[in-house]
Amino acid sequence: MIYGEKNVEKPIRWAMVGGGRGSQIGYIHRSSALRDNNFKLVAGAFDINPERGRDFGVNLHVSPDRCYPDYKTMFEEEAKREDGIQAVSIATPNGTHYEICKAALNAGLHVVCEKPLCFTTEEAKDLEALSKKENLVVGITYGYSGHQVIEQARQMIANGDLGEIRIVNMQFAHGFHSGAVEENNASTKWRVDPKMAGPSYVLGDLGTHPLYLSEVMLPNLKIRKLMCTRQSFVKSRAPLEDNAYTIMEYDNGAVGTVWSSCVNAGSMHGQKIRVIGSKASIEWWDEQPNQLRYEIQGKPVQIVERGMDYLYPEALVDDRIGGGHPEGLFEAWSNLYTRFAKAMAAVDRGETLEDVWYPGIEAGVEGVRWVENCVRSADNGAVWVEYQ
Amino acid sequence: MIYGEKNVEKPIRWAMVGGGRGSQIGYIHRSSALRDNNFKLVAGAFDINPERGRDFGVNLHVSPDRCYPDYKTMFEEEAKREDGIQAVSIATPNGTHYEICKAALNAGLHVVCEKPLCFTTEEAKDLEALSKKENLVVGITYGYSGHQVIEQARQMIANGDLGEIRIVNMQFAHGFHSGAVEENNASTKWRVDPKMAGPSYVLGDLGTHPLYLSEVMLPNLKIRKLMCTRQSFVKSRAPLEDNAYTIMEYDNGAVGTVWSSCVNAGSMHGQKIRVIGSKASIEWWDEQPNQLRYEIQGKPVQIVERGMDYLYPEALVDDRIGGGHPEGLFEAWSNLYTRFAKAMAAVDRGETLEDVWYPGIEAGVEGVRWVENCVRSADNGAVWVEYQ
Amino acid sequence: MIYGEKNVEKPIRWAMVGGGRGSQIGYIHRSSALRDNNFKLVAGAFDINPERGRDFGVNLHVSPDRCYPDYKTMFEEEAKREDGIQAVSIATPNGTHYEICKAALNAGLHVVCEKPLCFTTEEAKDLEALSKKENLVVGITYGYSGHQVIEQARQMIANGDLGEIRIVNMQFAHGFHSGAVEENNASTKWRVDPKMAGPSYVLGDLGTHPLYLSEVMLPNLKIRKLMCTRQSFVKSRAPLEDNAYTIMEYDNGAVGTVWSSCVNAGSMHGQKIRVIGSKASIEWWDEQPNQLRYEIQGKPVQIVERGMDYLYPEALVDDRIGGGHPEGLFEAWSNLYTRFAKAMAAVDRGETLEDVWYPGIEAGVEGVRWVENCVRSADNGAVWVEYQ
Amino acid sequence: MIYGEKNVEKPIRWAMVGGGRGSQIGYIHRSSALRDNNFKLVAGAFDINPERGRDFGVNLHVSPDRCYPDYKTMFEEEAKREDGIQAVSIATPNGTHYEICKAALNAGLHVVCEKPLCFTTEEAKDLEALSKKENLVVGITYGYSGHQVIEQARQMIANGDLGEIRIVNMQFAHGFHSGAVEENNASTKWRVDPKMAGPSYVLGDLGTHPLYLSEVMLPNLKIRKLMCTRQSFVKSRAPLEDNAYTIMEYDNGAVGTVWSSCVNAGSMHGQKIRVIGSKASIEWWDEQPNQLRYEIQGKPVQIVERGMDYLYPEALVDDRIGGGHPEGLFEAWSNLYTRFAKAMAAVDRGETLEDVWYPGIEAGVEGVRWVENCVRSADNGAVWVEYQ
Repeated sequence: MIYGEKNVEKPIRWAMVGGGRGSQIGYIHRSSALRDNNFKLVAGAFDINPERGRDFGVNLHVSPDRCYPDYKTMFEEEAKREDGIQAVSIATPNGTHYEICKAALNAGLHVVCEKPLCFTTEEAKDLEALSKKENLVVGITYGYSGHQVIEQARQMIANGDLGEIRIVNMQFAHGFHSGAVEENNASTKWRVDPKMAGPSYVLGDLGTHPLYLSEVMLPNLKIRKLMCTRQSFVKSRAPLEDNAYTIMEYDNGAVGTVWSSCVNAGSMHGQKIRVIGSKASIEWWDEQPNQLRYEIQGKPVQIVERGMDYLYPEALVDDRIGGGHPEGLFEAWSNLYTRFAKAMAAVDRGETLEDVWYPGIEAGVEGVRWVENCVRSADNGAVWVEYQ
Repeated sequence: MIYGEKNVEKPIRWAMVGGGRGSQIGYIHRSSALRDNNFKLVAGAFDINPERGRDFGVNLHVSPDRCYPDYKTMFEEEAKREDGIQAVSIATPNGTHYEICKAALNAGLHVVCEKPLCFTTEEAKDLEALSKKENLVVGITYGYSGHQVIEQARQMIANGDLGEIRIVNMQFAHGFHSGAVEENNASTKWRVDPKMAGPSYVLGDLGTHPLYLSEVMLPNLKIRKLMCTRQSFVKSRAPLEDNAYTIMEYDNGAVGTVWSSCVNAGSMHGQKIRVIGSKASIEWWDEQPNQLRYEIQGKPVQIVERGMDYLYPEALVDDRIGGGHPEGLFEAWSNLYTRFAKAMAAVDRGETLEDVWYPGIEAGVEGVRWVENCVRSADNGAVWVEYQ
Repeated sequence: MIYGEKNVEKPIRWAMVGGGRGSQIGYIHRSSALRDNNFKLVAGAFDINPERGRDFGVNLHVSPDRCYPDYKTMFEEEAKREDGIQAVSIATPNGTHYEICKAALNAGLHVVCEKPLCFTTEEAKDLEALSKKENLVVGITYGYSGHQVIEQARQMIANGDLGEIRIVNMQFAHGFHSGAVEENNASTKWRVDPKMAGPSYVLGDLGTHPLYLSEVMLPNLKIRKLMCTRQSFVKSRAPLEDNAYTIMEYDNGAVGTVWSSCVNAGSMHGQKIRVIGSKASIEWWDEQPNQLRYEIQGKPVQIVERGMDYLYPEALVDDRIGGGHPEGLFEAWSNLYTRFAKAMAAVDRGETLEDVWYPGIEAGVEGVRWVENCVRSADNGAVWVEYQ
Repeated sequence: MIYGEKNVEKPIRWAMVGGGRGSQIGYIHRSSALRDNNFKLVAGAFDINPERGRDFGVNLHVSPDRCYPDYKTMFEEEAKREDGIQAVSIATPNGTHYEICKAALNAGLHVVCEKPLCFTTEEAKDLEALSKKENLVVGITYGYSGHQVIEQARQMIANGDLGEIRIVNMQFAHGFHSGAVEENNASTKWRVDPKMAGPSYVLGDLGTHPLYLSEVMLPNLKIRKLMCTRQSFVKSRAPLEDNAYTIMEYDNGAVGTVWSSCVNAGSMHGQKIRVIGSKASIEWWDEQPNQLRYEIQGKPVQIVERGMDYLYPEALVDDRIGGGHPEGLFEAWSNLYTRFAKAMAAVDRGETLEDVWYPGIEAGVEGVRWVENCVRSADNGAVWVEYQ
């Protein structure tokens, strides 16, 4: 279905802020956006060093005069062109997301923004209001949510396959920062600096990912209160945490947990979500993203596979290759970027995209809000707090 | 090494209270005790129904006159014989453990007792004092601790293979009681009746198992405070919980978590323990008890196997068959019963068993204490409590 | 069901030949036979060194005067006693099985014999005839066949769950003998000496195990022809092989393969059987013996677990503990020894045991025959040979 | 390293033959070629139906006048343009590969061709000679070989990590064609028609894939002789096979096996390769393509992961994202297409690409040759044949 068909009538004229030479995240943005002719890279402010940024852009076949020294110049200059950019992706350090996103919206651009959207709920609400006022799309790259079996999970839950939902256990717990790696690594260093990273490290950087998966799978679940305890096992990271546990009570009596960690020594990513109902459970793990364990109480465990006919139809629409052939994180991101493109095109046509969900501005707001509540709990002695 | 050698000079004369017809737990006690000539079953009060108990005992080749109608009679009558019992195992519902254990100690018998030892720390301390005064062994059947790779884990941690210990994540979370199965099942029914089961269900019945594994692996770790939240997803179980989360802070700054649940739909047992250090982690899962995942940060994950030469020597002493051939829960229990026998024989010779650990009266006390602290936290709004 | 009930009215008086000090296989024989009061160890010729054998037997609480210097003396002396042995297990090197088995049958004893029963089909047929004439049970310790999910597989196939059977892939391929370990290891040395080990090493020692599993699962499948190629990667083992592939054509058009190897470096045991039908496949692996993969074409893979209610009733009768608790190789052997005891008791009562299968003399004959055919093929240039 | 840098100075002007609407394989060709600006899609003969092909091409932003009705017209017309195509990918049914490939080479075009290159060694040699004469690149899409841990395996073997190589076990055995699915499926139907599919089905379609992996990992291994037995379990497929076993003897005394099947009910793809040396084994499975099991005899099994620093440097060059994030089949193909582009660009500059391997014309020849030998063996009664 994706095999060569158009998702948008004309590729959207697109630029990046950040994501330059050596940026892994920049590459996955481009790789996902440019696939399938949804976007066309026509401009960029790729690097804080203008010259390096231009060189990089030219390598990507961007016209040299549209390789800008900074995002402000880019927004200004592109606005003057008939064929100026229509959308921009922001892949810069966390502390700059708010201002760039705001500027982009004010420039009338659709936005794709790395999470976190910003650092405070207040800022987040501000951006939300602005995007609504300007009628612009803001997509947040909760990339894992683009895996097709996440959609299968969503459909299974909606269809009652699990019974009444009782428990949601989540984790994103890797071990790559078990030691003080930031001492010699610029790309980690800013993450443990509150000025650059905001009020948390692993809660925001890691925990919000499976949290968003839970929002996709369980759109009706609302957190009522939570408690969070956080630790800095590498002492120099304090006050930012490198490990945290959050327990949540939901409106309907269900409970949830999130383990966020970068000191889970030896673990690759360890992002998992397990949703437990009165009849059955499902479990997903980011390192085997084409599979979903489906465990009906009293029956053999089933390994549900992407791409197979027995899935709900909604879980099949994004397939690029047959079941059994592993799709990876790039396909998940490509799925999101395709939906971003469709949503942008729909808005530009004066329509609304009804039939697909994607991580939009609300997802961005919710992530910021959750971190804020966790930090409030943790900093008050890991007490229970009402979710605000 | 176990292949046909004597662990004790003469098999210990042994009886059971409970564990009669249809009792799975009774069978595993007998199977473990009688293996390798450590014990000899010579008497029993197997059943609350005397006639059924006698019939059952006779089937086991116990002399009919030593099949007693109740434990009191048995302790009394056996005390009169020259060849009377030396040890007794208690496999009755939880609510009776305290009185039977006390009576056995007062009768001068070594004891093997199902957990929980009793319902309150006060009672537990009472039994501890009595056992010390009478110089008698009390073994607690934390059966999983007898798996040999648990010993390997203990040695690895002691030898610093993991670095400084930071996190201990534990769970025992099965799904067999996702529905209100107790309504038609006598063997479950008493577990959710506070009179019979004590102040908790899954905390005591399940959570204490991995907790004890952590005590074996990390003998120096002391809980400083904890918080616990518990739920009764099957409403009729209230006030007893069928799901609970406990978070602990240890003296040395490490943290621990325990997820106890019987409503983890679709899971078999789901008993796991993961110990995370600054350099590496280990993880053990009761459904693959011959293996230990060993994850050194920055190295390939290793699957450590029971019975292999590369293990610490302490992890090899209990092997009954070569590596790769699965030993199961029966072997783990047999290992414990062998140690119980050795300890009893040593005490009877006026010696102390120095070189092996086993779950003794202290383990029983600690389990009761932990549950008490969890319940105190939970019942006060899931607040943090100092560990008493 | 096994929980303390009698399988035989009185334990069968039983002896061992071989299996003395340091013998792993001797231990598993005793551990399995003595469990559940099916047998009672009353005599033995445990060791080629009489003194060591006696010492060993005494340790096992065998009366010193019934610890014999050799099997001939034992059979002779025991025959004179009213309470003489009724059955004997043979756990000696392969080259002695035939003569001891023959002597035992001639002495009117039931036999449990390690495989291979002997070295030639002629000898095997001879023993078969003798056992039938004397109406005595000969059990062969194809221990893995006692795992309960093997019975589940048998029932699934019989019930057509897999459709028409097309392919049976088998392997027993470990790596423990990747190097010339026999140079310093007596217990391996004889296995590569044709005089002691017979005409093959891994075909007989390893390949016959999954082959027997296929006979249990697929009792109607008959080999029509086969080809076998074998190698001696450790040169000094020639003419005996340390690796072999066998391909078989069955009467009904199905095909089978067996990979036998002791040089599969890094593998533990690697015993597997996969049966493929027109609708579904099942796969069993000896290192996770409580599970069976059930793969219906076009459906999610299912992990079938021992001890669960959804199994065929025949697969539940031997359970000793609930599903999810791992049973291991000892339980599989215990299941076989229980059936041996039942069969012996039935014969002694003048009855025939109708309702249970066990690896009897036919299984022993078939193993010898298969090896003989494989060797004939291999030694003629790995040509196809009619199965004789 | 791949993050936005140029692999070729200017994207290669590229066209496709076949791979039109609804073609999965066409999509993966385009997705891989167009990624990273290595190629630019400028023309195509996408479909046997010219109109549908044009419509499809236009959707892909190909100029309508460069959407050709057939490959001959395309080669002719493009040759007249200054900016005509430089390379073409062939994604048509097997029976047409030879003639299109030949025509492309004659038209001076670099070629990427689906396997099999053709049906006979004679044809294959013909194409090989032509490509050498014209000095043109022919890349064969053995896509799995582009996974980075295949390179790791190659380096490990070259460096002696496994010791002397003894055994190579291969399989590609899925179950999707367990039933006669071709009766209602055009895309399968031609595969079982000798006119369209050539002399074999699964040997060529499936078995050649892991065979090529073995060539990559073990470039010095030469087949000396082989035997092959093949079956048509779905009768209507005869004479083409849906299941086959091949056993090979290599020049150096090592042995290899290939199981090719499309009736392995319930299996997804089941492509595996296990290389066994005197010291260690490695195993790779296409459904978890980021991992390699590394099993050193006598040590814990290690799970080697893509993207980790401990790998050989050659296994890291193609990484697009950090370890633990799953890359999938698209990345493996992209890696190959990048090498094809580099090789084409090098040839066009008058250079030779020395430092990277890719599946070139020799790989195509070898696949055809192997199938031919297998068929010759099978059709002569599954006898051993000298490898020609």
